[in-house]
Amino acid sequence: MPDMRAFFDAKGCAVIGASANPTKAGRQILANMIAAGYDRGLFPVNASGGEILGLPVYASVDAIDAPVELVIIAAPAAATPDIVAQMKRRMDERGDLRAVVCAAAGFAELKNAEGEGHQALLAGFCKENGIRLLGPNCVGVIDVNNKIDTTFIAGTAHVPGGISFVSQSGAVGAWLLMSWASMPAGGVGFNKFITVGNMADADIIESLAHAGADEATRALGVYIEGSPESRRLVETAAAVARKKPVVVLKVGRTDEGAQAASSHTGSLAGSDALYEGAFNQYGIVRARNVEELSDTLRAFDALPLPKGDGVFILTQAGGPGIICVDELSSTNLFKPSLVSDATKQALKECLPPIASICHPEGHADITAAAGAEHHVRSLEAVLRDPSVHAVLFITVATLFLDLAGMARGMVEMIERLRKEGIDKPVFPAILAGNWTQESRGILEKAGHPSFESPDRAVRALVAMRRYSLFRERSR
Amino acid sequence: MPDMRAFFDAKGCAVIGASANPTKAGRQILANMIAAGYDRGLFPVNASGGEILGLPVYASVDAIDAPVELVIIAAPAAATPDIVAQMKRRMDERGDLRAVVCAAAGFAELKNAEGEGHQALLAGFCKENGIRLLGPNCVGVIDVNNKIDTTFIAGTAHVPGGISFVSQSGAVGAWLLMSWASMPAGGVGFNKFITVGNMADADIIESLAHAGADEATRALGVYIEGSPESRRLVETAAAVARKKPVVVLKVGRTDEGAQAASSHTGSLAGSDALYEGAFNQYGIVRARNVEELSDTLRAFDALPLPKGDGVFILTQAGGPGIICVDELSSTNLFKPSLVSDATKQALKECLPPIASICHPEGHADITAAAGAEHHVRSLEAVLRDPSVHAVLFITVATLFLDLAGMARGMVEMIERLRKEGIDKPVFPAILAGNWTQESRGILEKAGHPSFESPDRAVRALVAMRRYSLFRERSR
Repeated sequence: MPDMRAFFDAKGCAVIGASANPTKAGRQILANMIAAGYDRGLFPVNASGGEILGLPVYASVDAIDAPVELVIIAAPAAATPDIVAQMKRRMDERGDLRAVVCAAAGFAELKNAEGEGHQALLAGFCKENGIRLLGPNCVGVIDVNNKIDTTFIAGTAHVPGGISFVSQSGAVGAWLLMSWASMPAGGVGFNKFITVGNMADADIIESLAHAGADEATRALGVYIEGSPESRRLVETAAAVARKKPVVVLKVGRTDEGAQAASSHTGSLAGSDALYEGAFNQYGIVRARNVEELSDTLRAFDALPLPKGDGVFILTQAGGPGIICVDELSSTNLFKPSLVSDATKQALKECLPPIASICHPEGHADITAAAGAEHHVRSLEAVLRDPSVHAVLFITVATLFLDLAGMARGMVEMIERLRKEGIDKPVFPAILAGNWTQESRGILEKAGHPSFESPDRAVRALVAMRRYSLFRERSR
Repeated sequence: MPDMRAFFDAKGCAVIGASANPTKAGRQILANMIAAGYDRGLFPVNASGGEILGLPVYASVDAIDAPVELVIIAAPAAATPDIVAQMKRRMDERGDLRAVVCAAAGFAELKNAEGEGHQALLAGFCKENGIRLLGPNCVGVIDVNNKIDTTFIAGTAHVPGGISFVSQSGAVGAWLLMSWASMPAGGVGFNKFITVGNMADADIIESLAHAGADEATRALGVYIEGSPESRRLVETAAAVARKKPVVVLKVGRTDEGAQAASSHTGSLAGSDALYEGAFNQYGIVRARNVEELSDTLRAFDALPLPKGDGVFILTQAGGPGIICVDELSSTNLFKPSLVSDATKQALKECLPPIASICHPEGHADITAAAGAEHHVRSLEAVLRDPSVHAVLFITVATLFLDLAGMARGMVEMIERLRKEGIDKPVFPAILAGNWTQESRGILEKAGHPSFESPDRAVRALVAMRRYSLFRERSR
């Protein structure tokens, strides 16, 4: 069988079950393809004919008088025999189909003879004809760089980036995409997005290998419920992790969770302890929840790995700074940066007189008296010190602080240092709520992720440090 | 000394260091007092005279020809001798001052003779005259019901509610308030808010006792860095916890964090293990971070305590449902609700045919085919079953689902059941991002908290169950 490329680079796409009704998947898929910029031929298919979103509707797949390599099915499962017949006629006449994404539900996940029969019919046809199949019962795929979005998730921001995400749950995938689209600056960038559904053909293992091998993927996220081939699953993830970071949200941690996972996707969750051990061994980062998955992927995509264990906490607020220290110290992965006397002097010179510098070491409380310039200049002083490998940067909105100016200053300064060869990860937590959206947007737009809380910023750093240690060990 | 009432019910308030400059605390405090609805006499004080926000500016506190019970200081610490002289003249002439909130910094927290001297002068004057002092170096107090806001935090939503919050960090307080103001429906309601600053007089212990004793307080949150009287601190919190839930975010969990806390507020953090043991013994809920503090307080304020350990998970999405099961099962506080055959039948009748009902027990996957009515009717069926003591309700935005209609239906149904005497906590996680703000706003406005993720919803339930068990044990 050919590899999964056809799901992403297909020339010509038919959408079966196309609809003019905005609450139907068959319309949203067309809207998403258009929004993603798909320009290789888009063909709504519906016996009713007419026009949808300005596109002429075809009565069947074999009636399309142009190349069609991809078919997206959004029609009810009961229509499967008819759909297979259409595709068969097309293969007999033109033979151009390469891939099918079946977004419809009502197949083997129902665990009844009818659903299983429809799935077997569709999968059998595809297999015989060398056509790759994703689903049934999947949300679809997105490839921002290949300008394709076969999903029916509304509102996705098609911003290019280095994150790819592969999911055994369409809902978790949708949750992540909707969260990303709601982030400051209007969207976290990503590359490939794949939900595997019932895995009648392409499964979670092949999907993660495919997304991981993509050169545009800088960080790979995977949501796993389980697999009958758990060893191969982990080994495939491990092979990717040797080259780029892999962040896994594996559910079924508890017996009850494993039972629920088995009931959901019919997968055997497998012993969680075995997964956990393998993740540690192979440098696969495990996220505790979707928030951590998202934070960690954003950090891996955008930030350089820390080149050592020296961390400096630069905080404008005492309490949030302590929260940061607690979270950092509960791992034994870091040491406070012992910055030089020259750095301490530089900090003293660029900060308000009431700032508390290096009491304790590796920590400066620049106080609420700090303005935008104080933030930027002290961050620069700290980044220039060779004992500093990562900086946690915490600030709480105040009246006196020009947050947008601070964010612009940070972007300019970090770019300037990069040109000098100083490139270290900075983890900003700019608190809180709507007051900080503009400044966070300025950072995010320039490619600098920001975090909802000091503890979430620390956990992203912890993930990067763990992965960095793994890479050093396995060199 | 009188109790802390004067900070909240004072008649007549002078703001020293009043300013027309919107980036100055001395203007924001006036704006906040006006926004909070303070109507008992507001008097800007500044030698420069003129008018600020339509209010005439007085040259000194003793020049105000109306009752003044509260003085808010937003002038530099160096002005302390002059301010004390003004207040002394006023006490000699009219003797009406009862409380001082000193928002200015530059006092004992600097750990130098000048700062300590200014603090001693201010505190000494207040003590001699029976005037209560909050701060210096504090953010101030808010009392939504008493229509007062002495803080300089911009954008607080003065919505009445049952949460009170007492903080040893002004920044953590500000962070929480700004987060609340950014929530769907434009603001989480609260009652009293107190930041204690340097604790020259009113300290964290008295503040939590005062806020806890307030009848309008239904749930008390406390951010603790440490106290030289840690035993009395915990016992005071314990006394409140016997009557209403107390949620504590205690930092200084690690040695390094304790050292940072000591450096910040000069407090001895004390052994974290001793605090932890006491919290468990006295039914004081410990939050892991600010997000959990906020989620838990909102749940305690709005929801009835679960009356048993039977939990039902009603989910429209498989993956997020499994995340929920994992989080729930990692405690041993709950059992899946074993609902009756009649309830299963009712669920079957009101759900789409592909719904998975009670496989496993205590769990229904109503599937992405579920519309608003399916959500509301299945939730009602579950709530009516006596084996159900709490419901985790998870849904992910889809095209097909009228989320706003669902939220309105939920509010109506829950109110209707309450009238029938069925009042159980429901923990909704409606995912994700901006797509769910309207529906979450409808729920929140009607007094039903919603949560950012299934795992955060579970942790709020866990806190409620722990507290409920403590109340049962100590009856």
